[in-house]
Amino acid sequence: MKIVLAQLNYHIGNFESNQSKIIESIHKAKAQGADLVVFSELSIAGYPPRDFLEFDDFVARCQIAVYQIAQHCRGIAAIVGAPSLNTGDKGKRLFNTAWLLSEGKISAQVHKTLLPTYDIFDEYRYFEPNTAFNIIEFAGKRIALTICEDLWNVDDIPMYSVNPMDELVPQHPDLIINIAASPFHYNQAKIREEVLRKNALRYQLPIYYVNHVGAQTELLFDGGSLAMNSKGEITHRLQYFEEDTLLIDTDVIAIALKAGSPSKMALIHDALVMGIRNYFFKLGFKKAVLGLSGGIDSALTLVLAVSALGKENVDVILMPSQYSSDHSITDAQDLVNNLGIKSSLIPIQSIYHSFENALQSLFDGLPFSLAEENIQARIRGVLLMAYCNKFGHILLNTSNKSEAAVGYGTLYGDMNGGISVLGDVYKTEVFELARYINQKQLIIPTNTITKPPSAELRPDQKDSDSLPEYAELDAILFAYIEQFKGPEEIIELGFKRETVNRVLKMVNISEHKRYQTPPILRISPKAFGMGRRMPIVAKYLS
Amino acid sequence: MKIVLAQLNYHIGNFESNQSKIIESIHKAKAQGADLVVFSELSIAGYPPRDFLEFDDFVARCQIAVYQIAQHCRGIAAIVGAPSLNTGDKGKRLFNTAWLLSEGKISAQVHKTLLPTYDIFDEYRYFEPNTAFNIIEFAGKRIALTICEDLWNVDDIPMYSVNPMDELVPQHPDLIINIAASPFHYNQAKIREEVLRKNALRYQLPIYYVNHVGAQTELLFDGGSLAMNSKGEITHRLQYFEEDTLLIDTDVIAIALKAGSPSKMALIHDALVMGIRNYFFKLGFKKAVLGLSGGIDSALTLVLAVSALGKENVDVILMPSQYSSDHSITDAQDLVNNLGIKSSLIPIQSIYHSFENALQSLFDGLPFSLAEENIQARIRGVLLMAYCNKFGHILLNTSNKSEAAVGYGTLYGDMNGGISVLGDVYKTEVFELARYINQKQLIIPTNTITKPPSAELRPDQKDSDSLPEYAELDAILFAYIEQFKGPEEIIELGFKRETVNRVLKMVNISEHKRYQTPPILRISPKAFGMGRRMPIVAKYLS
Repeated sequence: MKIVLAQLNYHIGNFESNQSKIIESIHKAKAQGADLVVFSELSIAGYPPRDFLEFDDFVARCQIAVYQIAQHCRGIAAIVGAPSLNTGDKGKRLFNTAWLLSEGKISAQVHKTLLPTYDIFDEYRYFEPNTAFNIIEFAGKRIALTICEDLWNVDDIPMYSVNPMDELVPQHPDLIINIAASPFHYNQAKIREEVLRKNALRYQLPIYYVNHVGAQTELLFDGGSLAMNSKGEITHRLQYFEEDTLLIDTDVIAIALKAGSPSKMALIHDALVMGIRNYFFKLGFKKAVLGLSGGIDSALTLVLAVSALGKENVDVILMPSQYSSDHSITDAQDLVNNLGIKSSLIPIQSIYHSFENALQSLFDGLPFSLAEENIQARIRGVLLMAYCNKFGHILLNTSNKSEAAVGYGTLYGDMNGGISVLGDVYKTEVFELARYINQKQLIIPTNTITKPPSAELRPDQKDSDSLPEYAELDAILFAYIEQFKGPEEIIELGFKRETVNRVLKMVNISEHKRYQTPPILRISPKAFGMGRRMPIVAKYLS
Repeated sequence: MKIVLAQLNYHIGNFESNQSKIIESIHKAKAQGADLVVFSELSIAGYPPRDFLEFDDFVARCQIAVYQIAQHCRGIAAIVGAPSLNTGDKGKRLFNTAWLLSEGKISAQVHKTLLPTYDIFDEYRYFEPNTAFNIIEFAGKRIALTICEDLWNVDDIPMYSVNPMDELVPQHPDLIINIAASPFHYNQAKIREEVLRKNALRYQLPIYYVNHVGAQTELLFDGGSLAMNSKGEITHRLQYFEEDTLLIDTDVIAIALKAGSPSKMALIHDALVMGIRNYFFKLGFKKAVLGLSGGIDSALTLVLAVSALGKENVDVILMPSQYSSDHSITDAQDLVNNLGIKSSLIPIQSIYHSFENALQSLFDGLPFSLAEENIQARIRGVLLMAYCNKFGHILLNTSNKSEAAVGYGTLYGDMNGGISVLGDVYKTEVFELARYINQKQLIIPTNTITKPPSAELRPDQKDSDSLPEYAELDAILFAYIEQFKGPEEIIELGFKRETVNRVLKMVNISEHKRYQTPPILRISPKAFGMGRRMPIVAKYLS
């Protein structure tokens, strides 16, 4: 059988675009002589469609698209993903379904059995699990057709009480097809291959795996679709972070690819660039703006944005205050020159003084405090948003994960933006990523990387006045956020009790701030956003 | 058997407070001669604990609290709610458990079977469903102990394939106890009673129902715990929106209470007041501030805040611009006088001019636009936040649901705040609620209610310049948001195609704004927030 793996970038709810992409790929595959072309999970809707699935209208449009696509499946078959109605007398309204389309009609449907409902996944919110297991026969092959999580129940203590492949194996399949929407994080490609390998070896079957590619707001799908033989060796792999299609003859024995994968920083870099690019394209925007402080976070965000959107599409504003150091402007200006982008300079002292005057009668005699620090950050927020509103730009948020974790940022000030580029990148990783970029070419000024981080909202301020050193802070945060360790476990790692308690308290009393911040491009196994759901008005470790 | 229904207000993660409340109630109940005191679902953790459940430390603290509470159960028994570890060889890590504590130890555990995973609920994210069904024998009674949703599978097309009561009935229970955390919306008390009635009649058993009371950020739990006889008549009911306990002798035949419930506006009023009060108390804050514009939204928010926190704890700032009408100030001042609260006046023209000057070179020659409108709203946001930061207040957001729906508001401006009081109240309901309040005493100035709504950000601006009339807008929004109708269905209700398409588009392109707004006190069956999860970068009806 000649099978095309079609790894495409879908746009949630954009049926016109998704449908025409799919139809175009079907015709291309047919021209290549393929028997079958396989698209990823919920390809027609885009993944995740979230509560659009609650609308009959949305589900009906998915159905119509399936029927229309089926018309193009003559002399070739396709497997597409779309929700289907549960017509039974109980259970949730929908199934998450893989549709086999051939001879101009719907030839078979397979519903998803294992519905991930953890981290960023909410599938049991919408879908009824499948309970009927049948092999698909097509082109002389017996296909075990599965959907993403259906192959993932391989832990020692399995999360689900059924394994779809265990049910299908007695029907003697020749191969496994898995259509997926498996989002990226920096370890995910390895985990994914390991999970597929366990299946290949356990069932002694080859696997043809098609993943979603492209960004859906915070979720970054890295693609990396692949074919694996029954020995668990990868024989074909599609591009990461790009649309890609590949024709494979399942009857030809292919050579195993050599192992080896990009570095963590290379993956994060490419994921963030795709995330920015897709966010703008799918919203129909072209141009970004950000505030350039001379510090490393805004510098790195700018470099990534220029890679994603082109230098002609990224503007910056330098907004020094009376507390800005001399190097802030020169470092920022050096970077602007290195990149050749448009910049504007708006000193904020006079606006700051107008706020001081307006508040004088209320604040009379009270010392300079957080209020005055935040006014400066918020003035910058107002200026950047005015620029966006006037010229149709989107503001890029420049906060990093360490700041977002401990609430070291000003709500409605530097926490503004349409999308947060670095909100899942710890400060120590920000430095690492900056050095990774500078390896190829010295773009980010050395002084930006080497000087001590500062918010520059009061004289001689340093981040280390308020926070532990970032190496220590990030290690504690990682143990708490990514590893779910409690205070005693973190103290056992070798950190001081007082520091640990202070950091965890900072994290937990900042939920109200994170609630109101932009979506964050997700590159780690546990990002702030839809995958981490915390009470706000709570008192735990706080 | 003498049973106490203990309807308490828990604080998520505040084990010290929750535990001491529970222990105090146990001792009181014992002094009253009770055999058993019943607390609500997950009472030890507070509901919903959300991703705190992912932390072993959090779950361990729940267990310790259960053991410590058990020490106090001598000569009396208690039923408390807390997560328990799934020690089986598969499934999710936890159960959602009701614990029977007596004779100083844990006498029985019952796990929840039906795990709501829709709207604001995420229970299958954390819990494994129960599959073992056993009656609890206590004090000569055979108790069918169930947890909230366990009694809710009563629809014609049931969502779940099992009914716990069907499994328990063959064991001949004498009564049903249900411990619940069923959040308020304005129809929920009636729905809840109807669901319980179906169970009472179907199984011919009395029901003792204990609900959670109090606000957990956006979720408002109204209490209304009750006892129902096997004829489906309510014989006892606890207070709405207040902590309450009641001793009931199950062997004494009680008279049915008369039907009748508070009006929708009375319910909404009391729910919002509780929501504000609990939000501040549980965060450890006392004082609120808000911007008073002379319009109805801020006026109503202020009146509710004064009811919740006391007039000495609510300050307002009047911030007129060059576009504010004369009546804005006088209407606002009238309300300030009616309430006897502290107000400050900060005209914003001079700050506005300082922004104009700073942006002059960039905006040179371009016409006044949304950018300038938003600058005004954002200046007010900066001033209010400066007040909060300086004096330790929390800013109350005053946006209503109609505005939040169509994005008629300025992000980082009037969309700021710690909590949104009216974000689930449509504009037409805002008027209704204002009139309800004025029925008792004329507090909100008549002119505030009768004048045409305006944002006053440019000369002679009216909401109706940009939006359909609110009666029409709200009807379309209700059909889309609460009823999940698609465009064709809404047009069939009698609205113009062009208006419907325009409104739905406004809703769907505003997801990025709602993502960054404060949590919204939930009073409707479908509120913006954790119960409505929409993609941002999508293209559906937009």
